[in-house]
Amino acid sequence: MPTEIERKFLVAGDGWRATALGPGLRLRQGYLPNGGAPEAPVVRVRLAGKDGFLTIKGPGLLSRAEFEYPIPAEDAEAMLAALCIPPVLEKTRTRVAHGGLVWEVDVFAGHLAGLVLAEVELASADQPFARPGWAGQEVTGDGRYQNNALARAAAMPGPGPAPSP
Amino acid sequence: MPTEIERKFLVAGDGWRATALGPGLRLRQGYLPNGGAPEAPVVRVRLAGKDGFLTIKGPGLLSRAEFEYPIPAEDAEAMLAALCIPPVLEKTRTRVAHGGLVWEVDVFAGHLAGLVLAEVELASADQPFARPGWAGQEVTGDGRYQNNALARAAAMPGPGPAPSP
Repeated sequence: MPTEIERKFLVAGDGWRATALGPGLRLRQGYLPNGGAPEAPVVRVRLAGKDGFLTIKGPGLLSRAEFEYPIPAEDAEAMLAALCIPPVLEKTRTRVAHGGLVWEVDVFAGHLAGLVLAEVELASADQPFARPGWAGQEVTGDGRYQNNALARAAAMPGPGPAPSP
Repeated sequence: MPTEIERKFLVAGDGWRATALGPGLRLRQGYLPNGGAPEAPVVRVRLAGKDGFLTIKGPGLLSRAEFEYPIPAEDAEAMLAALCIPPVLEKTRTRVAHGGLVWEVDVFAGHLAGLVLAEVELASADQPFARPGWAGQEVTGDGRYQNNALARAAAMPGPGPAPSP
């Protein structure tokens, strides 16, 4: 079963733009209802520019099974409008080079305008990596920053809420 | 948005085998958790012989939006084993000719052995159709006979429980 390892950080400032690998890609995505249990798989519908995707993610915050399939953009549009939990999450994703790895920086819009998150995908949970200066507080283990939780969150200005103690 | 209209019946006897359009196809399918609300879309993972499919169905018993995509069989196997609500539903589906339409007769196995259901797909909710002699009680409006409910049902021998009053 394919597995992805991701680490996620709040972003402070615009320093990441200096090593951006091209223009950002506009993403619109939503989630099908899953009952909200932490162990329930997540089904994501995404429009990335003009491409549609359907993704099933198994439970777990750091390491998890993921299955992704391309689907027609019009199917994604219809599912976002009719089947996903509102509001649809909107963000612009930019690929950014740092320390030999490619990071993804997400600038949120809509109800989450002001929030900026960065993610880096690793080959294993203990792979060392260079943390950029613009990467602030790590939120990998914080379920509030999973996209399916963000989709349901109220407006979250600035760098986001303080972490739980 | 594509829509399918289906009517569903309990099956009495083996009369349908006389006009079967070939051997049956073995199906194994399961459902991702959706919280169980009647209006929640259903995500089905299916192995049909050696072919995998992922299907998203919108709410509603008679007319509903459906999106279906082929996926690798090994993905379907993995999702059935790790992500779907157990038990996996097993049945053999046979296409049967009657009155100029093609019916699908499902003979269940596993925890639902003894249950036989027939479905016919119509172009519109009011399309007339010839009801075969082997088609018993109609259960189109009975949520207990939706596959996602059957997957969770206890053993259901014979023609199934009496309808609610």
